[in-house]
Formats: sequence, structure tokens, C-alpha cells
Amino acid sequence: MSSVVETRKTAPKQSPAPTLKDAKEEVPADINIPDNYVSWTLKNQKPLPPITWDNLLQNLQWLTLAILTITPSIAIYGLFTVKMRWETFVWSVVYYFITGLGITAGYHRLWAHRSYNASKPLQYFLAIAGTGAVEGSIKWWCRGHRAHHRYTDTDLDPYNAHRGFWFSHIGWMLLKPRYKPGVADVSDLSKSSVIRWQHRWYVWLIVGMGFVFPTVVAGLLWGDWKGGFFFAGAARLCFVHHSTFCVNSLAHWLGETPFDDKHTPRDHFITALVTVGEGYHNFHHQFPMDYRNAIRWYQYDPTKWFIAVCAQFGLASHLKIFPENEVKKGQLTMQLKKLRETQEDLQWAPNVDDLPVISWESFQEQSIKRPLIVVAGFIHDVSDFLDEHPGGRHLLVKYVGRDATTAFFGGVYDHSNAAHNLLSMKRVGALHGGMQHGLQDKSIPPAQRLRIARY
Amino acid sequence: MSSVVETRKTAPKQSPAPTLKDAKEEVPADINIPDNYVSWTLKNQKPLPPITWDNLLQNLQWLTLAILTITPSIAIYGLFTVKMRWETFVWSVVYYFITGLGITAGYHRLWAHRSYNASKPLQYFLAIAGTGAVEGSIKWWCRGHRAHHRYTDTDLDPYNAHRGFWFSHIGWMLLKPRYKPGVADVSDLSKSSVIRWQHRWYVWLIVGMGFVFPTVVAGLLWGDWKGGFFFAGAARLCFVHHSTFCVNSLAHWLGETPFDDKHTPRDHFITALVTVGEGYHNFHHQFPMDYRNAIRWYQYDPTKWFIAVCAQFGLASHLKIFPENEVKKGQLTMQLKKLRETQEDLQWAPNVDDLPVISWESFQEQSIKRPLIVVAGFIHDVSDFLDEHPGGRHLLVKYVGRDATTAFFGGVYDHSNAAHNLLSMKRVGALHGGMQHGLQDKSIPPAQRLRIARY
Ligand code: HEM
Ligand code: HEM
Ligand SMILES: [Fe+2]
Ligand SMILES: [Fe+2]
Ligand SMILES: [Fe+2]
Ligand SMILES: [Fe+2]
Repeated sequence: MSSVVETRKTAPKQSPAPTLKDAKEEVPADINIPDNYVSWTLKNQKPLPPITWDNLLQNLQWLTLAILTITPSIAIYGLFTVKMRWETFVWSVVYYFITGLGITAGYHRLWAHRSYNASKPLQYFLAIAGTGAVEGSIKWWCRGHRAHHRYTDTDLDPYNAHRGFWFSHIGWMLLKPRYKPGVADVSDLSKSSVIRWQHRWYVWLIVGMGFVFPTVVAGLLWGDWKGGFFFAGAARLCFVHHSTFCVNSLAHWLGETPFDDKHTPRDHFITALVTVGEGYHNFHHQFPMDYRNAIRWYQYDPTKWFIAVCAQFGLASHLKIFPENEVKKGQLTMQLKKLRETQEDLQWAPNVDDLPVISWESFQEQSIKRPLIVVAGFIHDVSDFLDEHPGGRHLLVKYVGRDATTAFFGGVYDHSNAAHNLLSMKRVGALHGGMQHGLQDKSIPPAQRLRIARY
Repeated sequence: MSSVVETRKTAPKQSPAPTLKDAKEEVPADINIPDNYVSWTLKNQKPLPPITWDNLLQNLQWLTLAILTITPSIAIYGLFTVKMRWETFVWSVVYYFITGLGITAGYHRLWAHRSYNASKPLQYFLAIAGTGAVEGSIKWWCRGHRAHHRYTDTDLDPYNAHRGFWFSHIGWMLLKPRYKPGVADVSDLSKSSVIRWQHRWYVWLIVGMGFVFPTVVAGLLWGDWKGGFFFAGAARLCFVHHSTFCVNSLAHWLGETPFDDKHTPRDHFITALVTVGEGYHNFHHQFPMDYRNAIRWYQYDPTKWFIAVCAQFGLASHLKIFPENEVKKGQLTMQLKKLRETQEDLQWAPNVDDLPVISWESFQEQSIKRPLIVVAGFIHDVSDFLDEHPGGRHLLVKYVGRDATTAFFGGVYDHSNAAHNLLSMKRVGALHGGMQHGLQDKSIPPAQRLRIARY
């Protein structure tokens, strides 16, 4: 902790003068961020003019557009011209998972969120596999993703889900953004030799892992060069692309919000299925540094399983888990929120303060005109219940103008909590001096003993 | 309502002097029941001496024993000697439902609970069908069943589930009871001509509907006299018996208590399946005068469906339903009860009253020794969180000895509710004069805004 003290007593420790590009990148981008950065930026940042048909061509991101249209075109062409061999099919699915894990276990959970530590071999594996998914370098990807978490659902979020399903799925990549994404620090990543290595060889790696490698495996091992290229290369890449994109679109659109409903992220099994386990996105946005997305064993999160297995083999360590206590708090809050709506929609017994206080004499007098019964200090009008009473009309009639507390609470019949609740709805007055000691539990209907209160 | 007034002003209206047996029976059995009847009786009633091997023979109910052993014996003999014909099989199942409904829709929901009104033809149908189930006359059956509801789980309950599964299933019928069942009024039933008619011809009806009728149908229509007797007669009766008995045993033993957990009755689909729909017994004990046992369309309650269809054809009317509002209250209470356990099991932020109040100067001084940060008037020790912070160590370090309220609540990053909850767990002090106006919602962690309180 002593480092903290030092930092405080001296002026904010700035990094040494930026002589090299690398060194400069190692200073946190947000070290001197002002206290009102978000509100100020959201208010004062001038967005670029909106995209219309007229300026569309200037605003297209041609490279992304090319990759995202040519890949599926190649795949479709292959589908119609090359015969699918089962070995190639299996290899395509396997390679889909390998490159998918490169993104989910590597780019996403390891580098963007630092949710565990990976040994060098695992880091190289993930960096190389991730390149095969052709989604940009680790640094570029994490920069955007951290901004997405930091400014979720605002104009500073590059994939802002409020701008619609298709914008968050691919629109944000195909069009030049109107807003600059908010500040997000990736200085920790600049320090990593693996990431620098990937950055440096990125173009070669893409070609190698995206197309050459899957083709060569199928070609050398079972002679299916064409199938390797079209299916394990192009078609597989197309699936990996849209699989990952679904985390920004589908996962902000489909499902439940069991942990918090402040923002758009949602949990859904189907999203998990198509994203190698990234579908419990409501959990993930609440607890982004947790190496899990799914917390139950029966939920589908192969990325989590992969990390756990790596940990078993000593390839990963320090798997982060958000305190269970805080996770449960989120769930509890959401459940209480739902129940509170039920609570508010129900009719409740009139409060003692809203009832007239009536003397015993007046109660006697009034119960000549209508059937009034005293129970636990409250006066009840049972007009509409005489013929409905399961215990029979005669028992109610007998107690008109009298105190039925003992009879009602077990002396004659130990009424159910439901009967007690119903009784409270028939309150028309409070008996003067009628609230005696020891009656508290009888004067509060059972359904009103536990209440959701707001603080 | 005028009748009520009259009843009150004059002495309790007693019925005319009992000249006829019938007239006497029409006075409610509990019209003069004392206010402390239940507690007094439970305390002072002397039970018969416990049953041991020595006095077992004197205490057996031989008639019941005979019926409940001879019927299955006949059925098993038939199973091994008579070939099953599919017409007879179908007829046995149909007759199982007919006689079952006689008990569930007739004996139980119509007469014991008055949960709807039935036209004379329907009453005769139910009385005759119910006799085919050979479970005693309507009056005897309802007398016991009303006592069961009125004194559930006590010594005054003839099938007291606390005495074990087998006692409540058949034990109570096979052995002479140790306790007299509690008072239960069936004077309303004595007035019914249908019930009196059934009572009068009961022995003939049993033989006719229990055995002769199912045999004759199979014999005359497809010539299977033997099968009719053994399967539609004996085997079917055996199933109806244990089906009904399950309402007293299984329904007080298996399942959930979604409406109240004060007593043993439980809801379970399997119980419903084997009892023609009487398996939502937790609901039923809470709302016994409701013609339904299952309140959801997808739950299995053919007895309810039968009554509803009869109502469609004008054969039944005044189907009683307990107010939805009160039903939901019961469910809400049970759900809150569960969530309250969760709430109690969780660790919550220290309360402001339990924290030392610390001046700004002292805060400054102390934060030289350990990393303290002020947020929303509370002082937090973030020692164990510096390297865990997803936003990076540098942002926390920057705010040591400072007020991070604005930065924490959106200025730099709009932290999740989970982060806010976690923050509250790190409270070590309250800043003197630090609770400013407008900070209320920031000083109460989101998970503590909705709380289940007990009144
Ligand atoms: C004044 C308001 C009353 C209300 C709202 C009320 C309500 C109910 C309800 C809902 C039941 C159905 C069973 C249950 O839910 O526990 C019931 C049953 C019964 N009540 Fe009441 N009751 C009232 C007063 C009384 C009084 C004063 C007596 C006795 C002197 C009495 C005696 C009975 C008996 C004996 C039963 C059992 C019926 C059976 O299961 O066969 N009730 N009452
Ligand atoms: C002192 C107690 C603090 C706690 C307990 C805390 C907790 C957290 C948690 C749990 C997250 C994960 C995301 C979320 O749940 O919203 C987070 C993220 C973040 N925090 Fe804090 N924080 C604290 C202070 C601060 C301060 C003072 C700042 C800024 C000056 C800050 C800036 C950030 C940023 C920028 C992120 C986003 C990281 C990302 O998504 O890439 N935090 N914090
Ligand atoms: Fe997201
Ligand atoms: Fe993420
Ligand atoms: Fe029962
Ligand atoms: Fe019942």
C-alpha cells in the first residue's frame, strides 16, 4: 500500500518524457481525465453530420465492407461448386470453435477484461487463433470493447444498442462513426509482448490463419484443398464473424435481465448458443471482470469451460470471480422489483389511521342497521359475506355486535391466513380503545407482515 | 340484511322443539359452540388408550378392513383368470372417472364445500356415481371432511396428517379413532332431499353401482360379464379408493406450498394426476369454497373442467371463486418469505449509525496510511481492491484522500449498481458533515433500496 501513499503526497506521477512511441502508449489514456468528462463530452461533442443517401459513399468503410461481403460470397460460391466432405465439415466446425475461442477466451475475457492470467503459450495460442477470426488486432478490438462497457448505451459507446439492432450488429463497422468513442485505457495491453507481436505481424497472420492454415490442414491431411478453402476458410469465417457480432446485437436485445435492468444487456440461452457462451450478457455487463458469463453449471458457456480446463493444466491462473454475495444482491433486487409491482397492483386493507375511531356504544348501535363484527380491535362489515362464509351464516350472525377475536383466531376455528387477509378488507372502523396489548399479530393481516419497502 | 338485525335483537333464534329426528338434525351442530371450544377440547379430551398388539383385534374396524382387502383380492384373482378385453378396459377407465367425479365433483366440492349449486339431475347423477365409489354416505363423508378442514393437522382432524402417511391414507379407517373428531356442522346437508334419499337406499346403491351396474354394462353390451365384474367392478373400485385416499395422504406430503405453509397441504401435479384433479391441495385448504383446485389452465384439474362444462349446460351455477386479490396476496407472502431468507443470508453494508464519524482532516491524515476514498459522504477503504479494479489501479490511486463522488457516479464512469453495492461494503467511516442534500440516492446502495421489512 505504500506506493499509494507516495503517489498521494507527491504530484501525480507522470510517465517519463515520451521519447519512444511505445513508452507513450504505456501512460494510461485516462490518467488526467476530468471529473465531469462523461457529462461534458456527451453534451459538447459535435457529431458528424448524419448519413444520408447523398454522403453515403464518402462515409462507407470500404475495407470492412469488402471483408464482410466478399467472405460470404466466396462461401456461397463454394457451397454450389464444391462437394462437402464430412472430414472437412468436422474440421470447419472445430476451427469455428478454435477461432471463436480466440475471440471469446482471448480478445474478450483475457485481454479486454483481464478476467484471468494466461501463460505465454496460451497467450500465443489465443492471439493466433483470434487472428483467424479476422476482427482486427487485439489492441484495436479491446479499445472499442472497453469503451462499449464504459459508456454502454450512450453516444460514446461505439456499438450503442440504442441505435438499433443492425447498427450494433454491423452498422457501426460499415459506416464511419458519427461520434468519437469515449476514452478507454488500453495502456496495459501496450506493455504485452504478445500483443505487440500480433500487432506487428497482423496482416500476415490474417491471411495465414484466416485462409491458408484451414486450407492446408484439409489439403494435406485428406486432400480436400478446395473444401478447406471454401468451408473451413470462408464459410467458417463468416459464421465466426456474425457469431461475435451477435454479442453486440442479439445479446443487447433478446432475453431477461436477472441482475440489473439499468442497461440493454440481456441473458439468453440462444445468444449463448450462437456466441460460444457469451450470451449471459446481463451478468457480463454487471460483472465484466468475472471469467464466467454463465454462473450455473447447466448454462451453456464453453468459453468458461475452456478457461477452467486451461487452469487445470496450469496454463491459466487467477480466474476472477465477483463476490457471490454481490451477485445475489443483484438478483434479489430484480426479484423484489417484480414482486413490488405485484404488491402495488393489489388492494390492501385500509390503514388504521384512515378509519373512523368508533366507541363500543356506537358500534352496538350501528350493528343493528348492518352486520358489524369486532375482531382484534377493528370493526368489520360482513354484509356481503354472510352467505359466502364457509363456516356457515349462523356463526357470523351469532357474532354481530360482538367481539369475535377469540372465536376467529382458533377458539372456534383457526382461520387460514387467507381468511385473515380477507377479514382485513372488510374493515370499516377502529374500535376506540380496542387495540389491546398482545393483539399486534392479530391486527396485522398475514399478507402485510412482510412488505417490500423503498428506502 | 334485515334478518341479521332481527336475529340480534331477539334471543338467538333456536329451531322449533325437536319432534322429528330430521328436524333436530337441521339445527347447526355448532350453534352454541363456546368461544374456547378448540383449545379447551384439545387440552381436556381424553384419548382412548393407544393401540398395541394386545388390543389390536378389539380396535380394528372389521367392515372397512373387509372392503379394503376383499376388493383388491377379487381384482387380482380376476387379473390372473379372466382375459382383458379392450372394451372392458376402456369401460373400466371411463367408470373410474365417473365414480371418481361422483366423489370429487359431488361429495367433495359440491356437498362438503358448497363451492357451487347443482341442479337436481346433476345432484342425482353425482350422488349415484359417488355411491359407486363405495366410500360411505354423503353425510358421513362430509362430516369427516369438514372436520378435517376445520381442525387440519390437530387431534380433532380425523385424518390428521401429522400422524403419518399411512394413518392419513387408510389407518384412520382401519383402526377405531383415539380421538372424537371435532364438531362440524352438516345440518345444511340434512335438509337436502337427494342426500336423504341416498342415505336411505345406501346399501342397495352400493351393491348396484359398485358391482352390478359395471358388470351389466359390460355383459349386455359386449358379453363380457366376467370382465365387467372383475375389472370395471373390483379393480376399478380399488383404484378409486386409493385415488381418493391420496387426497388425505399424498396431498399432505408431496409438493410445494405456494399459498401458505402454516399447515401440511401441498400442491403437486402427480397428486392431481392420481386424484382426478384434487392435487392442488395447498390452494384447496386455503380457499376450500373455490370450485377450482388448480387455478392455471395448464394444471390438471378435470373435476373443475367437469363442473365448468356442467355450468355451460345449465346444470350447475354459482361457481364460487375466491377473490383473485386475496389469492395473489398469499402467493406474494410466500415468495417474500423465500426472498427474505436470501436477504437475511446476505452480508449488507454497515449502517451509517454503526460507523465512526470522521472529520475531513482526520480522513486526510488516515489516508496517508491506507487508501481511503470518499464517495457520497462515506469513507471507503479500497486496499483489497486496487489491483482488482476493472477501471484500473491508476484511477483509484488518483482519488485516495479525495472525494470521488462525481467521478464514480458517471463523471468518469457511470458504475453499475453492482459496483455501487460493492462500494458500500468497503465503508469504514462516515464523513463529518458529508451527507449533503441530494445525495440520498447515492448513499443508499441500489440493493438496499428495496427491502423486505417485517411489521
Ligand atoms: C367475520 C369475518 C369472518 C371471515 C372473513 C371468515 C372467513 C372464513 C373463511 C375464508 C373460511 C374458509 C376456510 C379458511 O380460509 O380458513 C372460514 C371458515 C370457517 N369459519 Fe369463518 N370467517 C369469519 C368469521 C367467523 C367466525 C366469527 C366464526 C366462528 C364463530 C367462524 C367460523 C368458521 C368455521 C367453523 C369455518 C370452517 C368451515 C369448514 O372448513 O367447514 N368464522 N371462515
Ligand atoms: C472506490 C471504489 C470503486 C469501486 C468499488 C469500483 C468498482 C468498479 C467495478 C465493480 C467496475 C466494473 C464495471 C461495473 O460494475 O460497472 C468498475 C469499472 C470502472 N471503474 Fe470503478 N470503482 C471504484 C472507483 C472508481 C473511480 C474513483 C473511478 C474513476 C475515477 C472508477 C472508474 C472506473 C472505470 C473507468 C471503469 C470501467 C472499466 C471498463 O469497463 O473498462 N472507479 N469499477
Ligand atoms: Fe455488451
Ligand atoms: Fe465484455
Ligand atoms: Fe386435506
Ligand atoms: Fe376439501
